[in-house]
Amino acid sequence: MTTGDISKRKAAEAAIAEVTSGMLVGLGTGSTAAFAISGLGRRIAEEGLTITAAGTSLATEAAARAAGIPFLAFDDLAAVDLCIDGADEIDPLFRAIKGGGGAMLREKIVASAATRMICIVDASKPVETLSRALPIEVLSFARAYVEGAIRCLGGDPVIRPAPSDQGNLLIDCAFGPIVDPEGLARTLDAIPGLLGHGLFLSEIDALYIGDETSVARRERHD
Amino acid sequence: MTTGDISKRKAAEAAIAEVTSGMLVGLGTGSTAAFAISGLGRRIAEEGLTITAAGTSLATEAAARAAGIPFLAFDDLAAVDLCIDGADEIDPLFRAIKGGGGAMLREKIVASAATRMICIVDASKPVETLSRALPIEVLSFARAYVEGAIRCLGGDPVIRPAPSDQGNLLIDCAFGPIVDPEGLARTLDAIPGLLGHGLFLSEIDALYIGDETSVARRERHD
Repeated sequence: MTTGDISKRKAAEAAIAEVTSGMLVGLGTGSTAAFAISGLGRRIAEEGLTITAAGTSLATEAAARAAGIPFLAFDDLAAVDLCIDGADEIDPLFRAIKGGGGAMLREKIVASAATRMICIVDASKPVETLSRALPIEVLSFARAYVEGAIRCLGGDPVIRPAPSDQGNLLIDCAFGPIVDPEGLARTLDAIPGLLGHGLFLSEIDALYIGDETSVARRERHD
Repeated sequence: MTTGDISKRKAAEAAIAEVTSGMLVGLGTGSTAAFAISGLGRRIAEEGLTITAAGTSLATEAAARAAGIPFLAFDDLAAVDLCIDGADEIDPLFRAIKGGGGAMLREKIVASAATRMICIVDASKPVETLSRALPIEVLSFARAYVEGAIRCLGGDPVIRPAPSDQGNLLIDCAFGPIVDPEGLARTLDAIPGLLGHGLFLSEIDALYIGDETSVARRERHD
């Protein structure tokens, strides 16, 4: 296990201590969420924790079922109690970029539907200013139009070889440092054919940051 | 032919007089757009008009090819010269509701990519205040979440039995009279999983309104 993996697992273990019996838990996608899923599976087996989960990707559903977590289709759910997921970058105002794994459209739906969202990261993820390439999900029909719109906004779009879980294009857009994430999100939201983007600006309520020896916890309004 | 059809055809015939050789034309979907497509096919045959078209639905592509109009896949196009399409309701500020046929996501992409958009309607479509049920396109994964969000906004969501051309859910949302369409559009744009909606607020540049005997033309800034 790498030191990054040790840090992610420590953060995930601390975060899942918030889960209590009876909760409906939304599970994220990616390496950090995978540690939360295996940890919840162990609490079910060892402590008799009784929860139900819904997930944000086909991979998450498979992992949850393998860990023995009862799993519902999210389609029928208007809300979940708690969402646990990772992030690729997060700034001091809990504004994050997600979607390195390409699942940010479903991840944002579940995060928005959650009463509380916990973000778990290793110490490499917190940044002063969001600046990594922003993933967007785009209807194939709108590819050239949206690429043109991203370039007009100063971004450099690069299409990924593999489609999203919904069969749409995934495009990484390098904007450089994003000094006004709210403004960029509003602009992107209004582009037809751009079906989702990886800016999570209001969803995250709590942040667990793990390193090799400890975990720091912060609340949005600390 | 009904009197509504006669009116739509008159408006479509007047509108396609704007099309000149060399143009790349975006073609809409629905009964009014169908009159524009057949009229353009006739101008190609009779006048030697040379245009290329791209379309907003599988039905439009089939109709254009049948009318002898050279047709490109829109995916590769960042812009078109002119877009011709109908509307289900349009107010005095050229704010429209489209999507009765369910193609509003692609229709909005093409309208947004167009240097100029012409809307063609019969005299039953202009209204003082937009008020018909607003169609939205929704990722199936987000069905219950988006239905809940629509109800929170005072809307009454009704799912259509048939999916969109992209395989997503189509949901008609009755809000009653929409007094602030810009505010509603911004709110809907920000709901994850809501992939598109039928409010066209800034796209339409010119309006042709047909009745049984005449056609009225208006420009946005008249």
